[in-house]
Amino acid sequence: MHDIPTPALVIDWEIVDRNIKRLAEYAAQHGIGVRPHTKTHKSVLIAQMQTQAGAVGLTVAKVGEAEVMADVHSDLLLAYPCVDAARCERVAELAHRTIPHVAIDSAHAAEALSTAAQRADSTIGILVDLDVGNGRTGVQTPLAARDLALHVETCPGLRLDGLMVYPGHIGKAIADQDAALAEVESTIAHTLKIWKRKKLAASIVSGGSTPTAFTSHLVPSLTEYRPGTYVYNDMNCVRGGFATLDDCAARIVCTVVSNAVPGQVIIDAGGKTLTYDKCGPAPDSGHGHVVEYSEAKITKLSEEHGQVDVTNCERAPEIGERVTIIPNHICPCVNLQDHIWIKVDETLKQMPVDARGMLV
Amino acid sequence: MHDIPTPALVIDWEIVDRNIKRLAEYAAQHGIGVRPHTKTHKSVLIAQMQTQAGAVGLTVAKVGEAEVMADVHSDLLLAYPCVDAARCERVAELAHRTIPHVAIDSAHAAEALSTAAQRADSTIGILVDLDVGNGRTGVQTPLAARDLALHVETCPGLRLDGLMVYPGHIGKAIADQDAALAEVESTIAHTLKIWKRKKLAASIVSGGSTPTAFTSHLVPSLTEYRPGTYVYNDMNCVRGGFATLDDCAARIVCTVVSNAVPGQVIIDAGGKTLTYDKCGPAPDSGHGHVVEYSEAKITKLSEEHGQVDVTNCERAPEIGERVTIIPNHICPCVNLQDHIWIKVDETLKQMPVDARGMLV
Repeated sequence: MHDIPTPALVIDWEIVDRNIKRLAEYAAQHGIGVRPHTKTHKSVLIAQMQTQAGAVGLTVAKVGEAEVMADVHSDLLLAYPCVDAARCERVAELAHRTIPHVAIDSAHAAEALSTAAQRADSTIGILVDLDVGNGRTGVQTPLAARDLALHVETCPGLRLDGLMVYPGHIGKAIADQDAALAEVESTIAHTLKIWKRKKLAASIVSGGSTPTAFTSHLVPSLTEYRPGTYVYNDMNCVRGGFATLDDCAARIVCTVVSNAVPGQVIIDAGGKTLTYDKCGPAPDSGHGHVVEYSEAKITKLSEEHGQVDVTNCERAPEIGERVTIIPNHICPCVNLQDHIWIKVDETLKQMPVDARGMLV
Repeated sequence: MHDIPTPALVIDWEIVDRNIKRLAEYAAQHGIGVRPHTKTHKSVLIAQMQTQAGAVGLTVAKVGEAEVMADVHSDLLLAYPCVDAARCERVAELAHRTIPHVAIDSAHAAEALSTAAQRADSTIGILVDLDVGNGRTGVQTPLAARDLALHVETCPGLRLDGLMVYPGHIGKAIADQDAALAEVESTIAHTLKIWKRKKLAASIVSGGSTPTAFTSHLVPSLTEYRPGTYVYNDMNCVRGGFATLDDCAARIVCTVVSNAVPGQVIIDAGGKTLTYDKCGPAPDSGHGHVVEYSEAKITKLSEEHGQVDVTNCERAPEIGERVTIIPNHICPCVNLQDHIWIKVDETLKQMPVDARGMLV
């Protein structure tokens, strides 16, 4: 631990294992499937652990990630609209060796995927992406969801599999999570009722986001859930009240490289390691939590420098000393590493970030 | 151009060439050496172009970058303190095939490098990092610079090469750039005078930052300059007044993947492509400039989604349409790509980002 080159992203295997099992147990108790979003870890090994814990499938954002995760699980949800020919062709190809489901919110996407599926002579499953208040993607009304589902049924090469929602707005800005989730349930239930009238199938109803993971039983229409961050957790989770510091499995070990400016030390982790992401629930809390110096604040990042204000610390870390950071948002940090370190008991070994940089 | 998978970082070769030549001409005119900071492009090919344009050496932040750039130029400045044994050993090893200079601001770094140099039986050049107001790294006074230089002279395996400054605070917050640069000159001149009294050598006096690149003649004590971003430029440069849109060589081609939410489109470039970096001179201007829709604003980034407000656009881009983004800060964007595309006339070819992810 004191010899690995820094900055190094170190995963505590015991915590990962505990995080995966805790959600698996919760989901089993409530009869809901877990389809972890692999964007957080981008790792074959972690996806295998999640699969062994009973995952019904895996979730990805990009086709490149799907191609990597196809070696782990045959049931894949691409929770991202595919509209261009190149991407659709790769999904259609993947359908020869996996069962892909793609979440879409436009007739354009349905047609592009249909064209590719027909050319590849394969079948692509479709979830209609319904916006339940997050305002990013998703058709805007239950009737629009029905109309898109009806359109999908007319497209050769596509199979309507159900509905996807992403309540990313809940648990951040909204104080009354339970009431907000009840509203999500009501929208989904209403949509499914309208679908039923048209004999539209919805074998999958997929929900997501780590902040609402352990309250997903409040949306009983969901058949499955696709959390990402829960596997590692980060300061967004801690300061949002969804995890404790002890639940944070991924930490960045840094070295103090300068203390020339009074009241400040420089760590060898800047924006190219920690990313410039602010903490959602506490934007003024700095760029991550310094575990050994909880009074320290990472005030500013350059690309390779982290400026740490240590004026409130009883003792400032010395040059050459190693400190450990829990980042604000772990997912983009993992994506900056070719390899990360796994800590099992007191031994460390390297693990590749298999789907790193899969932007397409 | 209309077939490459998106998001794709595309470099306009003509603009890169013009940017490199413009600075080389300015520097030649004022008798100052150029030592480009390769952190921006991390590319062997671009470093070769810079070398052909007369670069006196190359600058890197990390040892891994130095090992890549050693194939291009034998004279390398590591503008980053090395304090841990592993990193110092790699620098000492590099000294067998290159001339490395390392900028340091502590006796601790001098000793760590000296130990490594002695073990490897090599010599490492040292620049004393002097803070001229930026407040990140660098000894705080001319006298402290002298004392560190004197200490370096007592360390076996080290060779005192001179002084490094980084006026990163100028051109952003400070309105009167010329007066601020005059102050930098006065601090350096004073330091060199004190050094001279002790017969301390300063064959290199290195200045930096793209915003002050074309005013570096206002700091006549500088022997060389190490700008990074100038080669590509970005919205930080444009909105700071240091470049025009036409000077921006690196652009991200994206596809519109959703327009379900009224007044908004989603592009397939989020924080994992554009980074979460805000624009320094205009923090409220959004996450980059949409070239084809200058009234559009990238208001919010998820990892793979960019939310673009198009309410002020005469016409909104359609689903499947490609749009081009000039990012706020190009350096961390390049570091997210394994390959980027070079556009020469109307043909595109792939180029590796050779030193991508070299965090150590």
